[in-house]
Amino acid sequence: MDSAFAIADEQRYRDRALELPNSIDLSHHLSSLAKNRQSSALKDLYRYAARPGMIGLAGGLPNPDIFPFLELSAQVYTHDALSITPATANVDSGAEAHDAQSMVKKQSFLSWLFGKKSTTETITIGKQPASASPLDINLNTLLQYSSAQGHPALQAFIREFVSKVYQPAFADWDVLLNIGSTMAWSQVVFMLLEPGDGVLYEEWSYPGAMNTASPLPTHKVSIKVDGEGLIPEDLNKVLEEWDEEKRGFRRPRVLYTVPTGQNPTGATMLAARKKVIYDICVKYDIIIVEDEPYYALYADPWQSQKHHPKQIGARYADVEHYKDSKDTDEEFLKKLPPSYLKFDYQGRVIRMDTFSKTICPGSRLGWFTCGPLFAERLLRATEASTQAPSGLAQALVAKLLAETWKYDGYIRWLRGIKATYAMRRDWMCDLFETVFHLEFDQTLALSQHIKWVTAYERTAPGMGGAATIMDEKRGFKSKKAIVSFVPPTAGMFVWLAVHLESHPEFAQIKEADGPDGVNKMLYELWTELAEKNVLVSPGYFFDAQPGVPHEGTENFGFFRLSFSMASHEQMESAIKTIYKVFVKFFQEK
Amino acid sequence: MDSAFAIADEQRYRDRALELPNSIDLSHHLSSLAKNRQSSALKDLYRYAARPGMIGLAGGLPNPDIFPFLELSAQVYTHDALSITPATANVDSGAEAHDAQSMVKKQSFLSWLFGKKSTTETITIGKQPASASPLDINLNTLLQYSSAQGHPALQAFIREFVSKVYQPAFADWDVLLNIGSTMAWSQVVFMLLEPGDGVLYEEWSYPGAMNTASPLPTHKVSIKVDGEGLIPEDLNKVLEEWDEEKRGFRRPRVLYTVPTGQNPTGATMLAARKKVIYDICVKYDIIIVEDEPYYALYADPWQSQKHHPKQIGARYADVEHYKDSKDTDEEFLKKLPPSYLKFDYQGRVIRMDTFSKTICPGSRLGWFTCGPLFAERLLRATEASTQAPSGLAQALVAKLLAETWKYDGYIRWLRGIKATYAMRRDWMCDLFETVFHLEFDQTLALSQHIKWVTAYERTAPGMGGAATIMDEKRGFKSKKAIVSFVPPTAGMFVWLAVHLESHPEFAQIKEADGPDGVNKMLYELWTELAEKNVLVSPGYFFDAQPGVPHEGTENFGFFRLSFSMASHEQMESAIKTIYKVFVKFFQEK
Repeated sequence: MDSAFAIADEQRYRDRALELPNSIDLSHHLSSLAKNRQSSALKDLYRYAARPGMIGLAGGLPNPDIFPFLELSAQVYTHDALSITPATANVDSGAEAHDAQSMVKKQSFLSWLFGKKSTTETITIGKQPASASPLDINLNTLLQYSSAQGHPALQAFIREFVSKVYQPAFADWDVLLNIGSTMAWSQVVFMLLEPGDGVLYEEWSYPGAMNTASPLPTHKVSIKVDGEGLIPEDLNKVLEEWDEEKRGFRRPRVLYTVPTGQNPTGATMLAARKKVIYDICVKYDIIIVEDEPYYALYADPWQSQKHHPKQIGARYADVEHYKDSKDTDEEFLKKLPPSYLKFDYQGRVIRMDTFSKTICPGSRLGWFTCGPLFAERLLRATEASTQAPSGLAQALVAKLLAETWKYDGYIRWLRGIKATYAMRRDWMCDLFETVFHLEFDQTLALSQHIKWVTAYERTAPGMGGAATIMDEKRGFKSKKAIVSFVPPTAGMFVWLAVHLESHPEFAQIKEADGPDGVNKMLYELWTELAEKNVLVSPGYFFDAQPGVPHEGTENFGFFRLSFSMASHEQMESAIKTIYKVFVKFFQEK
Repeated sequence: MDSAFAIADEQRYRDRALELPNSIDLSHHLSSLAKNRQSSALKDLYRYAARPGMIGLAGGLPNPDIFPFLELSAQVYTHDALSITPATANVDSGAEAHDAQSMVKKQSFLSWLFGKKSTTETITIGKQPASASPLDINLNTLLQYSSAQGHPALQAFIREFVSKVYQPAFADWDVLLNIGSTMAWSQVVFMLLEPGDGVLYEEWSYPGAMNTASPLPTHKVSIKVDGEGLIPEDLNKVLEEWDEEKRGFRRPRVLYTVPTGQNPTGATMLAARKKVIYDICVKYDIIIVEDEPYYALYADPWQSQKHHPKQIGARYADVEHYKDSKDTDEEFLKKLPPSYLKFDYQGRVIRMDTFSKTICPGSRLGWFTCGPLFAERLLRATEASTQAPSGLAQALVAKLLAETWKYDGYIRWLRGIKATYAMRRDWMCDLFETVFHLEFDQTLALSQHIKWVTAYERTAPGMGGAATIMDEKRGFKSKKAIVSFVPPTAGMFVWLAVHLESHPEFAQIKEADGPDGVNKMLYELWTELAEKNVLVSPGYFFDAQPGVPHEGTENFGFFRLSFSMASHEQMESAIKTIYKVFVKFFQEK
């Protein structure tokens, strides 16, 4: 934490915030469970507890003298340890350098390493406080029971981040630490929903979120998506035409959405559409729960390397270009799509952030940003459930972020995270381009102003992919479209739309089995891939309304491919296997 | 973890367990929410994921190469760092050695320290696995998303502890890590209870637990307690005479209880009564939720130092005696009261343990021990809420417990924890004996076979306390009973019953205000103490059924005094203040 922020900058922020409206009263959204939660009866006690000289026999705290941890230390990356040039962001420990391309990558990575004086440093957290400041990070405090809001140093760091990066449009927002977004969403579910209520989801959504809310029970109401996420017209239509009697439950009041690098579709929503969605939510009094694990992973679009036959090599030749680029912290922040908070003049957005993707999932640390009513009810719920995030985790993360890297360092770190995933995204998209024949397709039913690509079977060597399409134009038998996807600008996933209609028996199967037929074909393909040692996620895992056809994409089956973990070599082998399996699958029998 | 246990001992345990019955079907206790939880749809995926050579593009895991923590280390106490002789267990960093008694303590502590070669050691957790064993503790695994059950090394350690220390009476028990007992209880509440259900509590119970269950909403049904905790006859009476129509809700199916060092009463229940309570719970089909934060803090009874006028000094003179004592790990374990699990031949006990009191609250680590049905449903609930305890915390605690101290070391550590709190308990009880005049009282309405003491005003110097009582027998005007308490054998609290009837205007006040009058008097006393810089917890914070008179103790007001944190000096000052304030309060006006 930039300690100056806690005083000067925060004051400046609060001054600026005074010009903004406060959140409106949204208490009618609270569930009866949330309304039933009592405030602590210990107010009198707290009032006295702060008195100097007070002898405290009231609490139930274990004695910190017998906590076994006397000092913690960690060897950590420096804030600038990760390269921000895509090529050298390679830390692909899995790959062995046994071919020329890997050698290039390896050397590049090593030379970059040696070019730096130090990429790691040591942080240490002692037992005793070094000062009386509540911002002091010491084990006596952090190993003890502590405030459900989180350690003050981490809170201040997060408040600085939120005010500078998200810039909420209402004045009285607050932040509250939590133990990660799954629990955070669970807390929101119990705060806002009654059994039998509906929740609005993207038509393909994160199963973890749906599994959290469904057992209450709640109904899933799916909203159509395209390459940019939720389609505003469909959201408006669903709400406008809501027929409580026909549906069996009242109009949904809660939207769960992942606007950036959506899981599973990889779609990212930009400012203009967010504004439209926000206004619809105002009109229908919807609470927007913005779950943003992949926010900082938003990167520049994938660039086709069509005219550089050796993609990886070409990208590496570009390193010098990247080094000279004007890419600064400021540019990085400017490019990020705005949070819904930026449009939120009413306090109806509950944003959930997590350190799982930017630090590590094992931190079990995230935070809410929301209005004071929700923040207070979530705090009460936290006291009666998780109590507080782990103090061991808070100690290490607070020391790293608030005292070591600080705000500017964390922004630089995020640029490194972004570059790493952007490089991996490029690996996967490049491999699709090398292995398949890609065409950029702006007419596909799913697309709007997002760049869709369709992958076809390659023709014989020497002919080149373009020839295939030309053949079609000249009346020759066409090569079939195999898969389409939007090269993602964020997240960890390529959402592969498989053109099942290219299967010779598709019409037959569909007539016999309906929507189930599509899933059966997809399962057959999935099994064939798994038998050939390529494990992907079938799209139906993510289906917000299984059994209900996805209008406009009924003839597609979907697979989610993660580019976060595999080495380049593994990815290459996987895409080649996918190609072989798919081409064979679509062959006339 | 004693790695041998995972193989040999665990097998031996499982062999022995084969002779035990399995848990019975208790699925009718599951709430509709718990029944609605789906198992993971990913079974096919997991089956393939383990195949050698499989390229995984299915998961959504962040890349561990860019986790910022490369190595963790901690300076920790050795397993035998804490003394197990009460006198030298003093690590009272708060107290200044400015009087003779403190000097004795200080010197004793220091000489004990110097007598040892090393009381701390360093543990280190590296990034890469050192072996392919799932028990290996490394950051690549622990900073990543992980199993909701907890790290295998920690699970194995806990399983060894449970099988050796608790010895459940049914075969198919399991353990499941959680993030501490408040969240654990919250998970149990949502697993077992429907809105409107009742929960059985001790008549004075932990407000945190009640705050977790009440908003669902649930009704609190209080069972009378004495110095040993729940009174079986009252539990049986409440259940036997349950009138659903009159009460407005069905007979409770869940008992929440803290059997050892109960919060706030400090009561500890021994084997015989537990067996009776268990049988009542079988009869009425009650699930016993055994919350045991203070279990390892169970110690020998407080011994009056009546005949050693300088208590502390006397205790110190005893150090040599303790050094020679036969107190072994085995004796320590033998003395612990049995868990309800030991009687549980049906699997109706859900035991909640926590590392908050034996390691530190900041670990946010605890565990369930229960039957397979509950374990599976709790696992599903965990996946949809907390996901897993913090990996940073698990890494440090697993390294400490499972790899460094191991089972035997942890038992030795617990003896040190026990000795520390026993010493602090002795401080407080000794001070009551020094400052007040104590009489051992076996006839008090509250007591049974637990040793109650009643504190009276001291007579003038030279007369001695006993004289006061003799005065009474000889027909002189008696000194009034001021407070009574059971010197606790576990926990952190002395539960002080204030003889409000000794107040000259008690009858008048009670007639005017009823039960509220008692609380008003108590609040007056509490405020007076706080104004004099002594902060205690008023009993009504812990009242399971506020407004309903506590039969047999209507004329008492209660205060909870914690002995866990204050230095001896602070405690002495506090007890002297309590004496002055109380004596003045009870004076005839």
